Amino acid sequence: MAQLQEALDLIGRGAEEIIKHEDLEARLKLGRPLRIKAGFDPTAPDLHLGHTVLLNKMRQFQDLGHQVIFLIGDFTGMIGDPTGKNATRKPLSRADIEANAKTYAEQVFKVLDREKTEVRFNSEWFGQMSAADMIKLAAKHTVARMLERDDFQKRYRSEQAIAIHEFLYPLVQGYDSVALRADVELGGTDQKFNLLVGRQLQEEAGQPPQIVLTLPLLEGTDGVQKMSKSLGNYIGINEPPNEIFGKVMRLSDDLMWRYFELLSFAKSLSDLKTMREAVVAGQVNPRDYKMQLAVELTARFHGTAASEAAVKHWNDVVQGGGVPADLVIQEIEVPAAGLRVAALLKAAGLAASNSEASRKVNERAVRVDGVVVDDGSLVFHAGAEHLLQLGKRGFARVRLTLA
Amino acid sequence: MAQLQEALDLIGRGAEEIIKHEDLEARLKLGRPLRIKAGFDPTAPDLHLGHTVLLNKMRQFQDLGHQVIFLIGDFTGMIGDPTGKNATRKPLSRADIEANAKTYAEQVFKVLDREKTEVRFNSEWFGQMSAADMIKLAAKHTVARMLERDDFQKRYRSEQAIAIHEFLYPLVQGYDSVALRADVELGGTDQKFNLLVGRQLQEEAGQPPQIVLTLPLLEGTDGVQKMSKSLGNYIGINEPPNEIFGKVMRLSDDLMWRYFELLSFAKSLSDLKTMREAVVAGQVNPRDYKMQLAVELTARFHGTAASEAAVKHWNDVVQGGGVPADLVIQEIEVPAAGLRVAALLKAAGLAASNSEASRKVNERAVRVDGVVVDDGSLVFHAGAEHLLQLGKRGFARVRLTLA
Repeated sequence: MAQLQEALDLIGRGAEEIIKHEDLEARLKLGRPLRIKAGFDPTAPDLHLGHTVLLNKMRQFQDLGHQVIFLIGDFTGMIGDPTGKNATRKPLSRADIEANAKTYAEQVFKVLDREKTEVRFNSEWFGQMSAADMIKLAAKHTVARMLERDDFQKRYRSEQAIAIHEFLYPLVQGYDSVALRADVELGGTDQKFNLLVGRQLQEEAGQPPQIVLTLPLLEGTDGVQKMSKSLGNYIGINEPPNEIFGKVMRLSDDLMWRYFELLSFAKSLSDLKTMREAVVAGQVNPRDYKMQLAVELTARFHGTAASEAAVKHWNDVVQGGGVPADLVIQEIEVPAAGLRVAALLKAAGLAASNSEASRKVNERAVRVDGVVVDDGSLVFHAGAEHLLQLGKRGFARVRLTLA
Repeated sequence: MAQLQEALDLIGRGAEEIIKHEDLEARLKLGRPLRIKAGFDPTAPDLHLGHTVLLNKMRQFQDLGHQVIFLIGDFTGMIGDPTGKNATRKPLSRADIEANAKTYAEQVFKVLDREKTEVRFNSEWFGQMSAADMIKLAAKHTVARMLERDDFQKRYRSEQAIAIHEFLYPLVQGYDSVALRADVELGGTDQKFNLLVGRQLQEEAGQPPQIVLTLPLLEGTDGVQKMSKSLGNYIGINEPPNEIFGKVMRLSDDLMWRYFELLSFAKSLSDLKTMREAVVAGQVNPRDYKMQLAVELTARFHGTAASEAAVKHWNDVVQGGGVPADLVIQEIEVPAAGLRVAALLKAAGLAASNSEASRKVNERAVRVDGVVVDDGSLVFHAGAEHLLQLGKRGFARVRLTLA
C-alpha cells in the first residue's frame, strides 16, 4: 500500500482537480498499466514550458508503468474552421499533419519516453464515420448542457456567434476516449468540460468512465498572466540554452516555487518543503535553488553539457559582468537591413548619439552578449535578443524586431 | 401577363405566406417548369384532409406545368430518434421505408398527378456523406439563430432538453433544397424556419434561393384545433365514403368556407365570393353548398360512383332517418371479444338495461348504420364507428375502442 500512496502523491502533484479520487485509487489497484490519454492540436507546435506541465504529468505516469497515448486530433484539424472566420484554423492536409506530428515528436520526446508512448490520430476512427454516425453522436448531449460551458455561455450572452459545429467538437473529443478505452484523460483546467463529456460517452458505451485529471495553466515569467507566445512571457523549449537558463534565473522567488512544483522531476514535494524552510530560516539564498531549477530545465531540453555551459556563461558573463538582475527587456525596431552596433547602442539609450557610440566601440568599451565588439561595421538583425554593455555600468537587454 | 396573374392567384390561394412574392413572380417569368419541393416523413402515412392542403398546392403547381418533387426524408428516418426517448421515432429499415413509400403512393396519387411527380429519397445524397461533411454543414448556422426557432426557444426557456442532433435536422432539410436545386419549397406554417434555412444554404452554395410558400394548418372538424388523428377531429382520406361525406356535412357553415378555400378544386375564389353572397342574401341554403363540397371530396378519394352512393345514403338513411346534425360521438370501450348489440345500446345510453335493449331488438326497433338489426347475437368489435338508432328518436353515434 505504500507504493499505491506514493503513486497517488506523484499523480496528484500539481494537479488542479481529479475526478474522482476514489475512481483513480480503485483503477490503480487493478494492477494493470492504465491507458492515459492526452489530446493535442495538429497545428504546428512550438512548445513552451507551459505546455510541458501536461507532458511532465504524462511522463510521471510512464515512470509509474502506465501506457501513455499521445493523441493528435487530426480529424478536426483537416476540417479546419468551416466558417472561414478563423484564419488560424485553415484546413490542414495529410502532409501538413504528418510534418506537424514529426515536429511534435522532436519536441515532446525531450520529456516523454518514446518507447512508452503510443502516438495515435483520431482520423483513424472518425475517418470511417458517416454523417449518420455523427448525428447519432450529436444526440448524446443537449444544447442546454453545452451552453453551460463557460466560454460558450459568455459568447452566447454577449451575442457572439457560436457555429453549431462547435457543439460537435467536445463530443468528438469525448468519443476519442471511447475509441481509445482511456482510463485517465489529462488536460488543462480549460479542458475540464470536454474531459467530462468523455466520461459520459464512455458510460453510455458501457465502459468504466475515465478519470479526469486537470492541470493548472502555468503563469508566464511575469507571474501574472498564463504563459503564452503572444504575451511574450514564455520560455520556449527550443530557445537557446543561455536563454532558458537566464529566463529561469530572472524569475521572482515566489514563481520559482511554483515552477519547481510543476516542472521539476529532481525535487520531490518533501524536498521542496525542506528547501522552503531553509530559505525562510535564512540558511539558503533562494538564488542557489533557482540555479538548480535552471540547470535541471536547461539540461532537459539541451543536455547536461549545454546546461553546464549555461551555468558558466551566467556566472562569467552575465553575473560576473555585474548585470542588474532586474534588467527589463527593451523592444527595439530595426529595419530589414539591420542596425550597426553604434546605432543599436543609441537606440537602447546607452549613448546620446551615433558618434559617441562609435567612439566607445573604438575604445573597446562595448560588449554584446559578454563579448567585446570593436568592429563598427557589425550589423544586428531582427529576431534576436542581446545583452548590451557599455563600460562597467551601462547595461541594456534588447529584443530586436522588424520595423 | 394575364396568364402570369392567373398563376400567381392560384398559387397564392390559401397560402399563409410567400417569401418573396417578387422572387416568385420573377421565377415564373423564366418560362421554364419550376422545381417544386415538398418533404415528407418516411413514417407510415395515414393521411387526412389536413395533409391534403399541401398536396393540393402541389397539384396546382402541376396543373400550371411545373415539376413537383415528392421528397421522402428517409435519411433521418433511418436514424430515428437516437436519444431513444421518442418511442414513435424508432429507426426504420430500408424495407420499412419502401413499404411506407408504397403506402404514400397509394394515398397521394389520389391528389397528385403521378406522371408529373418526381419521388426522391434524401438518403440518395446524405447516404454518401461523411462525418466531416456533416460537421461542415453544421458550421453553416449558429446556435443563437437555431434557438430563435419558436419551438426550440420554448423548450430552452422551459428547460426541456433539446438534443444537439435536433439542431442538425433543419440543416439536413435545408441541404435537400441544395441537392434538388429547388425553386420553391412548400410546407406548413410550422415549417417556415426550416424552409428559410434552405434559402440560406442555397445562397451559400451559389444557387438562387428558393421561394418559400407556407400553408396554414387546417382546423379539424371541431373548427378549433388543427386537424389531427390524436384529437379525433379528422377526416381521413382512407375513411369509407359515407364517413367522409357525413363528416363534411356536419361541418359548421363557417368551417365549410375555410374547407372550400383550402380543399376545393371545383370552386375558384371568385365562385366562392358569389356563393357567399348568395347565402348572405338568403337565396341559397348553405347546406346545399356543403353537399357540393362533400360530393367533391368523397369523389376525390373514392370516385364518382361512391360519391353518388354517399349522397343517396345521406339523403335516405341519415337525413331521411332524422339524425340530429349535432350528434356527438361517444367513445365506448369494448372487450376484445366484442359486445352484443343489446349491450352496445345499453352502453350508449339508449336503453336502461340489457333486457330492455334485447326486447327492442326483437321488436325490430333497432338500426345500426341505418340497417335494422334483429339478430341479438350480432357482435360489434373495437375499431369501428356506428350510428345506433332506437325507434324514431333515439340516436347515438359511437366509436368502439378496445378496453
